[in-house]
Amino acid sequence: MVSKSQTKLITSLQQKKYRSQSGLFVAEGPKVIDELLNENMELHSLFSTKASEITAENHFHVTETELKKISFLKTANTSLALFKIPQPKIPQDSGLIVALDAVRDPGNLGTIIRLCDWFGVQQLLCSEDTTDCYNPKVVQATMGSLARVQVHYLELSEYFGKTKLPIFGGFMDGNNIYSEKLPQEGIIVMGNEANGISEEISQKITHRITIPRFGKIQKTESLNVATATAILLSEFRRFTEM
Amino acid sequence: MVSKSQTKLITSLQQKKYRSQSGLFVAEGPKVIDELLNENMELHSLFSTKASEITAENHFHVTETELKKISFLKTANTSLALFKIPQPKIPQDSGLIVALDAVRDPGNLGTIIRLCDWFGVQQLLCSEDTTDCYNPKVVQATMGSLARVQVHYLELSEYFGKTKLPIFGGFMDGNNIYSEKLPQEGIIVMGNEANGISEEISQKITHRITIPRFGKIQKTESLNVATATAILLSEFRRFTEM
Repeated sequence: MVSKSQTKLITSLQQKKYRSQSGLFVAEGPKVIDELLNENMELHSLFSTKASEITAENHFHVTETELKKISFLKTANTSLALFKIPQPKIPQDSGLIVALDAVRDPGNLGTIIRLCDWFGVQQLLCSEDTTDCYNPKVVQATMGSLARVQVHYLELSEYFGKTKLPIFGGFMDGNNIYSEKLPQEGIIVMGNEANGISEEISQKITHRITIPRFGKIQKTESLNVATATAILLSEFRRFTEM
Repeated sequence: MVSKSQTKLITSLQQKKYRSQSGLFVAEGPKVIDELLNENMELHSLFSTKASEITAENHFHVTETELKKISFLKTANTSLALFKIPQPKIPQDSGLIVALDAVRDPGNLGTIIRLCDWFGVQQLLCSEDTTDCYNPKVVQATMGSLARVQVHYLELSEYFGKTKLPIFGGFMDGNNIYSEKLPQEGIIVMGNEANGISEEISQKITHRITIPRFGKIQKTESLNVATATAILLSEFRRFTEM
């Protein structure tokens, strides 16, 4: 059973304000939930339609109708969990880091977190106006990678003022990424879906790079931020010893 | 004004069956519509809230309320157009070609069409069970690239039986893409979101390739099909003379 106060709490977690207040976020479906548990994300409570999954005090057996009521998905899965948002850590100024300047689309952020995980990028820096990574849509899109990538929300320009790492930024008019010598350590900055990297952040970029367009007719406006991140990460990693 | 029969026609075009019957598809917003017009896609009719855009007999001035009624978008734009679906052409067995085996998500197909356009891939082969490229969600996601990439729906295994081109397929256990010698001409096959490339098509693949995972913990399940396509296209093109 789901109590009224539980329903109220879960529903409220769609909004960032209430996630911050309660320190909780929602994950749905056994696959995503298992991945988060495997990475030692701390479980607050679990709601499942399967009696076999109810093995602790903070596990609640629910009917399909009850689950549907608390689910954020179009088609509810068999389980929904609340996890505790991990305490923020201090970013380590080393290795390959991705930084996002005002990326707004939850699907894009989720895909980028998954890409970081794939390419062994352990730290993702986000400007304060980037979508919250504990937004339910982001959590679902990361497929569990969220537990393996540290996401830091901070004042990007302040961080860039102090870092010792080279700062690469994706622009339409930068150096050809395929002929650029890329280091193993550095920060790759990706900008907002509509406006790219902001003026303030642009001034901190030490290396302007671009993915060249091919084909005779060069009209494609720009690549989606997630696909551009995929290509840049692949370029930075392709020469790495495996 | 939008007549009852026009409303009925437009609404029906959300379904592939009625798109095939009428030979029409929907595009929304001045940006996407302009791109399609620029590429000589044939306009059937235009519905716009801006009187200044009504310059021909098949243009109709509509109110915001009327547009909202016929729009497929959550937030209707200022215009909606019907275009004629181009006559299918015979694929040219040359150049770099992308082939999709049962890709289902309209967003993924739209992103892949945009990527083909960016990387100068003029032909996209789709298995009959791949999402229809004239689905309104795909049309919007392509941002106009749909007019510059030829999309062919056909029996993939039959085509692969006849082609003279090498056939590359993305698998979890193929050769490392970064050390593979990649030709300028060939077919790159990408599989279904959940199941990858089907058994039947796998047998026709001449070169099994993979994007290696990095990082210590190698748990990320797989890359999204659109981001994987981005990385493979970048690899095939990076050595091309520009």
